[in-house]
Amino acid sequence: MIVLFTDFGPAGPYTGQMKAVLAREAPGIPVVDLADDLPACDPEPAAYLLAAFAPAFPPGAVFVCVVDPGVGSERAPVAVSAGGRWYVGPDNGLLAIVARRAGDARWFAITWRPPILSASFHGRDLFAPVAAQVARSEEVPGTPLDGARAVGADWPDDRAAIVYIDPYGNAMTGIRAARLAEDAAVVAGGRRLRRLRTFSDAAPGAAFWYENANGLAEVAVNQGRADRALGLGVGTPVRIETAGGAG
Amino acid sequence: MIVLFTDFGPAGPYTGQMKAVLAREAPGIPVVDLADDLPACDPEPAAYLLAAFAPAFPPGAVFVCVVDPGVGSERAPVAVSAGGRWYVGPDNGLLAIVARRAGDARWFAITWRPPILSASFHGRDLFAPVAAQVARSEEVPGTPLDGARAVGADWPDDRAAIVYIDPYGNAMTGIRAARLAEDAAVVAGGRRLRRLRTFSDAAPGAAFWYENANGLAEVAVNQGRADRALGLGVGTPVRIETAGGAG
Amino acid sequence: MIVLFTDFGPAGPYTGQMKAVLAREAPGIPVVDLADDLPACDPEPAAYLLAAFAPAFPPGAVFVCVVDPGVGSERAPVAVSAGGRWYVGPDNGLLAIVARRAGDARWFAITWRPPILSASFHGRDLFAPVAAQVARSEEVPGTPLDGARAVGADWPDDRAAIVYIDPYGNAMTGIRAARLAEDAAVVAGGRRLRRLRTFSDAAPGAAFWYENANGLAEVAVNQGRADRALGLGVGTPVRIETAGGAG
Repeated sequence: MIVLFTDFGPAGPYTGQMKAVLAREAPGIPVVDLADDLPACDPEPAAYLLAAFAPAFPPGAVFVCVVDPGVGSERAPVAVSAGGRWYVGPDNGLLAIVARRAGDARWFAITWRPPILSASFHGRDLFAPVAAQVARSEEVPGTPLDGARAVGADWPDDRAAIVYIDPYGNAMTGIRAARLAEDAAVVAGGRRLRRLRTFSDAAPGAAFWYENANGLAEVAVNQGRADRALGLGVGTPVRIETAGGAG
Repeated sequence: MIVLFTDFGPAGPYTGQMKAVLAREAPGIPVVDLADDLPACDPEPAAYLLAAFAPAFPPGAVFVCVVDPGVGSERAPVAVSAGGRWYVGPDNGLLAIVARRAGDARWFAITWRPPILSASFHGRDLFAPVAAQVARSEEVPGTPLDGARAVGADWPDDRAAIVYIDPYGNAMTGIRAARLAEDAAVVAGGRRLRRLRTFSDAAPGAAFWYENANGLAEVAVNQGRADRALGLGVGTPVRIETAGGAG
Repeated sequence: MIVLFTDFGPAGPYTGQMKAVLAREAPGIPVVDLADDLPACDPEPAAYLLAAFAPAFPPGAVFVCVVDPGVGSERAPVAVSAGGRWYVGPDNGLLAIVARRAGDARWFAITWRPPILSASFHGRDLFAPVAAQVARSEEVPGTPLDGARAVGADWPDDRAAIVYIDPYGNAMTGIRAARLAEDAAVVAGGRRLRRLRTFSDAAPGAAFWYENANGLAEVAVNQGRADRALGLGVGTPVRIETAGGAG
């Protein structure tokens, strides 16, 4: 399985052009769009989403990850094997968190280059063909790399900020709920929110936080949009408080 | 064929996460996105759309239907065999109209539960795996249910309101055009509209109604957006009038 | 491979209904969404995009092209074989440029009609089944046609206007960059822009033009949206100036 994880937008020709390459270079291998609406040109929040979404995918899945504001500059193309899955993308931190959490990450600098490489669309010209090759053979056309030198190696394990607003207006943080005490409060948009199990446990219009289906602490409003109600957007900081004081 | 019919939005990771489950649990079975922009958290209009769209799909098609504001509450998961196709989703009325029109509906309460069931994403954790099983075997992991007790059993056969605004701004009603007299007028947004065959039969900018490609009475404006021109949205009531008087 | 190229919008049921037809009529043939956000009901800009995107697709690819404001009127359905690929759509200019550039175009009037043809959705009822047949057999159910009589035969080889705004706000022109002198300037939105290689060669916030990954001259702003910064939209005219004077 090849999984697309990009900021290309739900419209537009870029995803289709990548899929055409994959259909040609990896025929018969299913391609799944996981996300095309990642925060544009901002690899950091996307890194925490990738780490949250990836574990549910089957062994051998190859993720093509393209949030790549530095395309055409000196930033390196990399591939990572981690937790039985593969990740292909730019060395800008996007792959750093999923690699770190796996514990067994092996990093590679991609040395292969296509006959024609555009200056602005490495997703199509470089990352998709490499992902196709990895999906076919589990071999990456590159050389080992020290992951400790990759961008993002110094980023925190969890990110105390909103990393994604979903289509319903729910606001995902970059914090794993399992790291939080049962009675922890999330402070976001000036409100101190308590944990509930799910939407139907809140009164209509009430804000709360809960462990979402991907394990992240998420701020939500029952039958409403948390982004608008609390003034949240990608990058808005959040704070954790426990009964004993601020965490 | 497995067909996705959701309110997940054209962006966002939820459709992709469901497709990853389907690729794993029903390998080789094509998956078609029919709709991901259904009116959010509102099963009633979606029920009339499903009933209009479904007949064009081949026998054996399995629809995964997720407009599920009650996820995590006591609402039951159900499956319905109707007209040679299958429908899997919540018991909140979403499947009621397509089942009733088929005339041969058999309802099932889904009793299977996954090893891990999130509180907020039954589309991925419950409905997709059940749909995969039905697509593979035509058997549903559940027990027979009396459809007369399902939510929506008391909803009308046709719905005199706008149920969907399409990307061009056309406004679909929940009324089957075949139920209307040839000279019936649709009154919507304060305007009395006559029936035309199609767009090119109207003057540019003129509003009219016609039988759309799925058999519904649809309000449209040639070379314009009916939603804006007439102030229509999902839920706006419409009225039918015939030459002999109001219908 | 069957490629979808439409103005159906990223949301909405129309793409899914076409895919259901293709899954039934051309089972096992991969279907790729190239674009669903073409300028609505405006075949001219889409014609220049199609000509730019098509060469990267493999031989035998069949494009289903639906930007079809005249659906239900007298406009003819056509198919074109050009450059080893096939194109199916309305005779409204949409296929004119890709056909002309190939140099070996053969045009056909589609004479086949489905048992049931809606007045408003020929993409599903007519173009998709014909594309499926062409993809299976490389034969088109129609009769030869003189391409010189097709709509668009008098359109220019390149179009000096914006033809597409991508999801990042970059503004593609209908001009092939290879046709322009190295020192040519693009005048757009009242600004005279010089050519750069790619985004990272511009200062943050600076506007420029470059040869995009599909060979078109594109107006862009590094780390910004060119459409908003320069007031550009589909149809905005652009002008080429060279050192020796206006080109």
